[in-house]
Amino acid sequence: MTTPYFAPHMQAALDQARAAALRGEVPVGAVIVAPDGRVVAMAGNRTRELHDPTAHAEMLAIRAACAQAGSERLPGHAIFVTLEPCPMCAAAIAAARLARLIYGAADPKSGGVAQGPRIFAHPQSHHVPEVVDGIAANDAEALLRGFFAGLRRHE
Amino acid sequence: MTTPYFAPHMQAALDQARAAALRGEVPVGAVIVAPDGRVVAMAGNRTRELHDPTAHAEMLAIRAACAQAGSERLPGHAIFVTLEPCPMCAAAIAAARLARLIYGAADPKSGGVAQGPRIFAHPQSHHVPEVVDGIAANDAEALLRGFFAGLRRHE
Repeated sequence: MTTPYFAPHMQAALDQARAAALRGEVPVGAVIVAPDGRVVAMAGNRTRELHDPTAHAEMLAIRAACAQAGSERLPGHAIFVTLEPCPMCAAAIAAARLARLIYGAADPKSGGVAQGPRIFAHPQSHHVPEVVDGIAANDAEALLRGFFAGLRRHE
Repeated sequence: MTTPYFAPHMQAALDQARAAALRGEVPVGAVIVAPDGRVVAMAGNRTRELHDPTAHAEMLAIRAACAQAGSERLPGHAIFVTLEPCPMCAAAIAAARLARLIYGAADPKSGGVAQGPRIFAHPQSHHVPEVVDGIAANDAEALLRGFFAGLRRHE
């Protein structure tokens, strides 16, 4: 499913994921959109470059958007991510009070939204965003598959 | 339980928590110790100061220790935290491959280790640290109670 409403922001997140792959990072991208439709932050994964295991695309985008807003919270904002967030990022999305999470491919190996710890399913999550999954999932999966196939070729 | 081995590092984490309270932050502190016993990072909560919902004590300490090590991973290292980590921090502890997590007070409201999402109990956690809880728990709880009582007095 790709609706006209979701398409441009998820395409921007996919562009961030592609740029991450070119930097040698696992290709995941994230975009945060304000209630008025403005894109307020975009980021790709930078864990290797920054030597920072917390530097996932979602975390960098949330930190940038919060710094810009001068607030720990982003009510009414939406985050678009190419891949199902891991538990760390899902919990950060709840902490930032993001209103909506729209993601692409499911991540059975490391995801924390629809599997495993299912972050939003417990009372310890003090906020639960609206979740929409499967948006441009094929594109996100193809990017990840290509990246890991490339790594194997270089082994 | 307070053993001679744990006591100094947890006291340092409590000092970080007290300093956080003086800055108006929820009093939680964290200390990371290298395999040779050196303290490589110390931090207190700075979410308000930094306008950053991810700036929990554990996250700041992990980012500082990784930056210093020039690595995304901290094998053999221990993290001392005054309060049970939330799911975001627990997942970051797994991502950083920290060998041991030693914490003080349990956190039924927001914890992610011994309750709720129980981050380390799922296959999506690719690393599981040794966990020791209840170290100097009374001190950590008293700090938190005092902080929130103070907030209520100012309401």
